[in-house]
Amino acid sequence: MKQLKIGLLGLGQVGSGVYSILNSKGTELARKCGTRLLISKIAVRNTSKRRLVAPKRSLITTSALSIVRDPELDVVVELIGGIHPAKELILAALRSGKDVVTANKALLAEHGRDLFREAQRCGRTLLFEASVGGGIPIIKATREGLAANRIRSIHSIINGTSNYVLTKMASSHVDFKEALSMAQKKGYAEANPKLDLEGIDSAHKLTLLSSLVFGGWVRFQDVFVTGISSIRSEDVSFAEEFGYTIKLLAIAKKTRSGIEAHVRPTLLPKSHVLSNVNGSYNAILMHGDEVGDILFYGRGAGSLPTGSAVVSDLIDLARMKREGLKLPAPLHLNRLHVRNVSVLESRFYLRFHVVDQPGVLARISRILGGRHVSISDVIQKERKIGGVVPLILLTHKAPERSVLRAVQAIDRLSIAKGKTQVFWIEES
Amino acid sequence: MKQLKIGLLGLGQVGSGVYSILNSKGTELARKCGTRLLISKIAVRNTSKRRLVAPKRSLITTSALSIVRDPELDVVVELIGGIHPAKELILAALRSGKDVVTANKALLAEHGRDLFREAQRCGRTLLFEASVGGGIPIIKATREGLAANRIRSIHSIINGTSNYVLTKMASSHVDFKEALSMAQKKGYAEANPKLDLEGIDSAHKLTLLSSLVFGGWVRFQDVFVTGISSIRSEDVSFAEEFGYTIKLLAIAKKTRSGIEAHVRPTLLPKSHVLSNVNGSYNAILMHGDEVGDILFYGRGAGSLPTGSAVVSDLIDLARMKREGLKLPAPLHLNRLHVRNVSVLESRFYLRFHVVDQPGVLARISRILGGRHVSISDVIQKERKIGGVVPLILLTHKAPERSVLRAVQAIDRLSIAKGKTQVFWIEES
Repeated sequence: MKQLKIGLLGLGQVGSGVYSILNSKGTELARKCGTRLLISKIAVRNTSKRRLVAPKRSLITTSALSIVRDPELDVVVELIGGIHPAKELILAALRSGKDVVTANKALLAEHGRDLFREAQRCGRTLLFEASVGGGIPIIKATREGLAANRIRSIHSIINGTSNYVLTKMASSHVDFKEALSMAQKKGYAEANPKLDLEGIDSAHKLTLLSSLVFGGWVRFQDVFVTGISSIRSEDVSFAEEFGYTIKLLAIAKKTRSGIEAHVRPTLLPKSHVLSNVNGSYNAILMHGDEVGDILFYGRGAGSLPTGSAVVSDLIDLARMKREGLKLPAPLHLNRLHVRNVSVLESRFYLRFHVVDQPGVLARISRILGGRHVSISDVIQKERKIGGVVPLILLTHKAPERSVLRAVQAIDRLSIAKGKTQVFWIEES
Repeated sequence: MKQLKIGLLGLGQVGSGVYSILNSKGTELARKCGTRLLISKIAVRNTSKRRLVAPKRSLITTSALSIVRDPELDVVVELIGGIHPAKELILAALRSGKDVVTANKALLAEHGRDLFREAQRCGRTLLFEASVGGGIPIIKATREGLAANRIRSIHSIINGTSNYVLTKMASSHVDFKEALSMAQKKGYAEANPKLDLEGIDSAHKLTLLSSLVFGGWVRFQDVFVTGISSIRSEDVSFAEEFGYTIKLLAIAKKTRSGIEAHVRPTLLPKSHVLSNVNGSYNAILMHGDEVGDILFYGRGAGSLPTGSAVVSDLIDLARMKREGLKLPAPLHLNRLHVRNVSVLESRFYLRFHVVDQPGVLARISRILGGRHVSISDVIQKERKIGGVVPLILLTHKAPERSVLRAVQAIDRLSIAKGKTQVFWIEES
């Protein structure tokens, strides 16, 4: 039987998952794809670290470079993460004639064009199913299963950590910090969860998804990002009173004026299919011109789910190699125009903290009205004449720029205490 | 550029969708797969019928046989439905060296083994993405995207008509007949909706899904089926009071004792991810040993969604053909043992209609207790001493056989008026 000789870079969470799947299902998978998937070398930084799996010592090396240059290997699986030296290692692997499988969304989002271009130049394949949505086969589904469609929009929850935190805030009525510490205890948040909570990880994934479905390259730095750390427990409750859930949504749309792409806390109606995506689960809702709305839901992270996506890429590679192919069709790397978010229109949730005195609502609505922002709903709680109270307004559709300018003007008033909270509302 | 010459059998809903997609996106798809997808012949029964699309008259023939035998064609797309002559046409197409794409779940479920065997014997490919879940690329996702997984279970809503009817019963508080007539007005139910409402269509699709993921062939006649026509408006309300939604669920599991496969009205907790699948949407939830729970959701029917799935098969075929492949790996056709449902255990919803007199609940629970069926919840409504009232019991887990025998005994009592309603409850 044919063999696919694999060099693994990294034996952390995902690397252990890949090792464990290939180790326990070797025969079954060999039968499935007509090729034995063989881990021939594994590079780790620290050979004495305790790990989830225990490969033979003879497979282990501390030299990643020796793996990417090893002429015996067919594929390099890059699972060390980060930008450097992952980028240099992948480039070296491609140049030495190896196909590459990676789960590194940060690297692909920020340097993907260089990598895909080099893969094309070298006639090699660079696969990345595990980089978006963990175990959800979203890349394959989009690229092949929905090939007859033009995808018009993506609405997605693609960061499990922040979704877990938001779910906890809603279900246990705790504040952001407490929810985060629950997530850390459960292993759903890293010690330094900044990339997850600030929306960067979601933006990386959105960059990749958009570049995959919109027929050109969306630059990571063009994706607007806001994270969830400013969300207060009271925002979750107020949203709930209006019939909404707050989610960290990664949204991208293809319009005649260009691409819209942004990641931010967004209010979704409770009846929306993404409203019920809870805990560390991910979900990607796409709208295709033929197929209509279609949603993929599953575990967006974790050793075995993500490992399962890496292995599906290896199986695809094995099948291709057996037949001498160089599929799949490469991404289109021409740069797409991404619209500035400030010109986009949306409904908005505004939470002011104001001194509770007569005429406050009138003053605020006058300033909003001056920018053609009109109000659809109001909640004003607890009366404490002279004290500071929250005042929540939902607006009709308006350009973000107008809303932000009005809010700036309001925040300069003496009745305003503290910075106003501004969230998008997505109705459909 | 290479061409894939397609013969289309049938120009109804799905056929029109395929024609319209290939017609409007010819150039785009040709670029995507490096091959022009060309409809060369279309067989219809009645050439003068008004249709959604208007292909050139020269493409049209009334002889399906001339298409399956035409040596110029590469692929036959069978969209006429039904068992005969669809089966004979597909066999003839395979034997004359053509690959075949079909959306015919009834045919594949009931005669799939013959067809797949013949395809293997002839070295041809038989693809069927459109046969399950309409536009949802579930076949590809399972076969390739989840290839690293052993699928343990399937929980699915795979009939849009019955899901629309149940959704209407719940949201508009109407009875089955009225909900059905709403579905018919909306075009979500055919004039003769028996196959949909009696669960047969779901069972066809479950047969295919199970045979795809469990590594052998599940016979259609081994799948237990009950439809939704006996569900009363009061069942929907009582279920709701207990915190459940009634869905027509198609469930299959792989256990050590064999396959479990059944389609029937099932109570699902409102928090269950399938509870929120409403209207004519379909959803398939699978549990993979590596990936965990994963769900696919989308339009399960309709001209363009289903057409989009057919076209994705054609694109796959074009890619394979260009490279001289005969992918994908065939189904395993060895017959799997399917367990008799009566030995399966579940929680149950029981709605009795009983004479309202003292001691009724005691008598009923004694008979259930005699079969080791214990009660977890009770609702007894409206007191009308001497009149007939509904009495609803939820049971703890028990073998279906024991529950049905107890119910039979109870239905013979003079206090019981009318046949007792028995539904499964699926907790997770």
